[in-house]
Amino acid sequence: MDIKSLVRTIPDYPSPGIQFRDITTLLHHAEGFEACIARLADPYKSMNIDVVAGIEARGFILGGAVADRLGTGFVPIRKQGKLPAKTIGETYELEYGTDEVEIHADAIDPDTNVLIVDDLIATGGTACAAVNLIRKVKGNVVGACFVIDLPDLGGLKIVEEMGVPCKSLIEFEGD
Amino acid sequence: MDIKSLVRTIPDYPSPGIQFRDITTLLHHAEGFEACIARLADPYKSMNIDVVAGIEARGFILGGAVADRLGTGFVPIRKQGKLPAKTIGETYELEYGTDEVEIHADAIDPDTNVLIVDDLIATGGTACAAVNLIRKVKGNVVGACFVIDLPDLGGLKIVEEMGVPCKSLIEFEGD
Repeated sequence: MDIKSLVRTIPDYPSPGIQFRDITTLLHHAEGFEACIARLADPYKSMNIDVVAGIEARGFILGGAVADRLGTGFVPIRKQGKLPAKTIGETYELEYGTDEVEIHADAIDPDTNVLIVDDLIATGGTACAAVNLIRKVKGNVVGACFVIDLPDLGGLKIVEEMGVPCKSLIEFEGD
Repeated sequence: MDIKSLVRTIPDYPSPGIQFRDITTLLHHAEGFEACIARLADPYKSMNIDVVAGIEARGFILGGAVADRLGTGFVPIRKQGKLPAKTIGETYELEYGTDEVEIHADAIDPDTNVLIVDDLIATGGTACAAVNLIRKVKGNVVGACFVIDLPDLGGLKIVEEMGVPCKSLIEFEGD
């Protein structure tokens, strides 16, 4: 199954010069979606993952299915202001300005093994914030996996330099 | 597995008098999450579902896993302005004002069987909008399932009156 061919590229979205990699066409394809979830989850089956942390919003679609395959629970990492109980936040830099993600303060049992799942890694800002959040609540980040890596933007290496082994299924160069 | 006991109630959130039913504690619990996904998916295994439509954002966590169990693709129904390609929108009433959800115009193959998944049904505004969206793009809505129903708010009946059989796993009365 060639999952890369199922990703749709939308030119100049959300702004001129950006090639947006749209995974909805991959998710919609039954065999493509199955292959995607299998390839994300299978490498972690022997790694004693306790919980999967998915990053809002597309990381929820993938992370829920990966957690189900691994037989673990699921923890959402959300945009600021979306979680109802006590939260811990982490700010990260955008091209212009900053953004913030949050986790419930009691979301992770201390010293449990957490796998981060998201659809795409570009500069790594959100993923690094997710690693910091999980560490703040005393979880062990044992891995992070993504469907798409944009290697020219270097995010995967930055997350690995934080001591988190990363995997991606496909790459788009020149982004 | 008593999944109802794993739902956390947060009083007066997001506004005074509201009892917020927080499923993050259920999702975090490995056996609870597994039971939840199994009970959502199993009744549809013999129903020739072609695609699962999950409603942003908690419906993504559940819907992705249900689609994986059913061997189908997944289609996101998102808040306004989040989908990158051509969309169709549907506005629905809130207590004060209106909100809008969208689907990609090419998200559903015509005459295919769609199952809607979300975490909770209250007044049914979002679920009815989801049904209308899927029908606008020529899908057959063959069912809708929710973890939590708040029966006093009547949403499940309203969706059933649209000709969509509904299921929920647990109820909270008095909301």
